[in-house]
Amino acid sequence: MEEIHFKGRKVLITGGLGFIGSNLARRLVHLGAEVVIVDSLIPQYGGNLFNISDIQDKISINVSDVRDEHSFRNLVQGKDYLFNLAAQTSHLDSMNDPYTDLEINCRAQLSILEACRQYNPTVRVVFTSTRQLYGKPDYLPVDEKHLLRPVDVNGINKMAGEWYHILYNNVYGIRSTALRLTNTYGPGMRVKDTRQTFLGIWIRLLLEGKPFEVWGGEQLRDYTYVDDVVDALLMAAVSEKAAGKIYNLGGDCVISLQGTAKTMVEANGGGEYVVREFPAERKRIDIGDYFSDYKLFQLDLGWTPKVSLLDGLTNTLNFYRKNLEHYL
Amino acid sequence: MEEIHFKGRKVLITGGLGFIGSNLARRLVHLGAEVVIVDSLIPQYGGNLFNISDIQDKISINVSDVRDEHSFRNLVQGKDYLFNLAAQTSHLDSMNDPYTDLEINCRAQLSILEACRQYNPTVRVVFTSTRQLYGKPDYLPVDEKHLLRPVDVNGINKMAGEWYHILYNNVYGIRSTALRLTNTYGPGMRVKDTRQTFLGIWIRLLLEGKPFEVWGGEQLRDYTYVDDVVDALLMAAVSEKAAGKIYNLGGDCVISLQGTAKTMVEANGGGEYVVREFPAERKRIDIGDYFSDYKLFQLDLGWTPKVSLLDGLTNTLNFYRKNLEHYL
Repeated sequence: MEEIHFKGRKVLITGGLGFIGSNLARRLVHLGAEVVIVDSLIPQYGGNLFNISDIQDKISINVSDVRDEHSFRNLVQGKDYLFNLAAQTSHLDSMNDPYTDLEINCRAQLSILEACRQYNPTVRVVFTSTRQLYGKPDYLPVDEKHLLRPVDVNGINKMAGEWYHILYNNVYGIRSTALRLTNTYGPGMRVKDTRQTFLGIWIRLLLEGKPFEVWGGEQLRDYTYVDDVVDALLMAAVSEKAAGKIYNLGGDCVISLQGTAKTMVEANGGGEYVVREFPAERKRIDIGDYFSDYKLFQLDLGWTPKVSLLDGLTNTLNFYRKNLEHYL
Repeated sequence: MEEIHFKGRKVLITGGLGFIGSNLARRLVHLGAEVVIVDSLIPQYGGNLFNISDIQDKISINVSDVRDEHSFRNLVQGKDYLFNLAAQTSHLDSMNDPYTDLEINCRAQLSILEACRQYNPTVRVVFTSTRQLYGKPDYLPVDEKHLLRPVDVNGINKMAGEWYHILYNNVYGIRSTALRLTNTYGPGMRVKDTRQTFLGIWIRLLLEGKPFEVWGGEQLRDYTYVDDVVDALLMAAVSEKAAGKIYNLGGDCVISLQGTAKTMVEANGGGEYVVREFPAERKRIDIGDYFSDYKLFQLDLGWTPKVSLLDGLTNTLNFYRKNLEHYL
């Protein structure tokens, strides 16, 4: 089914050198799509040329920032699909420099959508949003009817960015779907630090033979392996039903942070971690347990996460065992 | 009670030459507060020097735009209260020029809060938000648990602005309350056009002896008279309980647009209106019936709207019968 939809189709991926974007690009290349990647390659963000080293002859890379309105007026033209993944994702950065987060996660989203409206109103858009918008859950699992109560500047700006997409769908007919991702992991993720997810730094320390830190430990979480996220992005893009909709993604299981750490050590065939108390300055914005209800997406589009946490972590560790040097 | 809180206290009102801001300033002057008004006096917005002509010797006016970060670093210093009312409020403007709306309703809010954090973290802030965030209601009356589904760029940006206030309360202890206003009316409102509310243009046409247009007519609405809104702003400002909270305001009755038109004609002692079909381009974002549940604010703070629609419209029409020339 997917081959029919993407063979020979023109696809633009913002943030395409990043973790999820590059995995999506790889899949689309295999499906026969003509992929153009846009990425700013800002060192603190997720873009990494090594992520697409195996497909670099089959894609086109355009180094450009989503804040650059001018380049996007050109880049959106003639595309069938736009996977809009570029973002500032760091909680701490958003608090220390709220304006940069606003420029990327709000203003740039508006200008990308304006470019679509003016130069390519028939493009199909998929936007990656985040479960961070929900804040501390009132109930579990969290479905899309849960109130949004973002706990950092990043969450507020992503909320606005998500809603611009829904608005441009409803008012201007720019067909857009927003997927609220939970913790995503897999080959290509940032492991240098905790800017994308704590799992990254766990993997790095484990492979370097050092103990990693688990903060708290009892909190429940869910995780999606990147291949399952790529499935979701493609399914959303080809579904008419999904236009104008917001969907949660989720994971195959719900597990505590300590359970996650144990699974990680198991997948690695050894390793150590220490459980630390939650730092006071993070406690104020701690959301406690979180796991999402993705039944709506399952029902509407038939998506189910297929990769177990153990298998996913095993694949990921295998990848970084070979390639860690390219991610430090 | 209010005199105790505001006598001799230093108060900053953004958008203070506007409709609600000027009514608030007048009340605060009577309560003995030292009021500084900030307003950009942009002709298309609500600021009007006539609004404060009766109190101009008792207040201080600082012409400055909320987008000017530099002036706010100075202006917030030494203030006990900040009533943050400045906004771009036009639906149409927000769709035609989404960036200006973003600069005023998102970015400037962030920079005002940053100024508070850095130069006056003990200031008490009250922010005026709007029922527009709810979009088309799932149920009536709409309480604060209703999902937010803004239907225009303005609603999305106001949503972000509201949440910056809650975030800065929760993370930095800048005590802030957000009030979601419904249709507010009264002396000082913009009557030149429909930029603030359709009631404005109805009043103008009625006083000019021309028929006004009612679009649709069956839709239910609620209205708050400006004096009741001023009560709410002051009550929120002096309540510790209200810090970090979001509250709906509401009206004393729920009435259809045609019923509103009839009440308006009754208050005026005559006049005509025509019922028109809802224009197609507005239909896409029509929210149908709306009226709010303000029980939470009533319960927490004891606020109740006191002015009936007939009395409020009578006062308003009397005001514009004398002063219309200053609002055209």
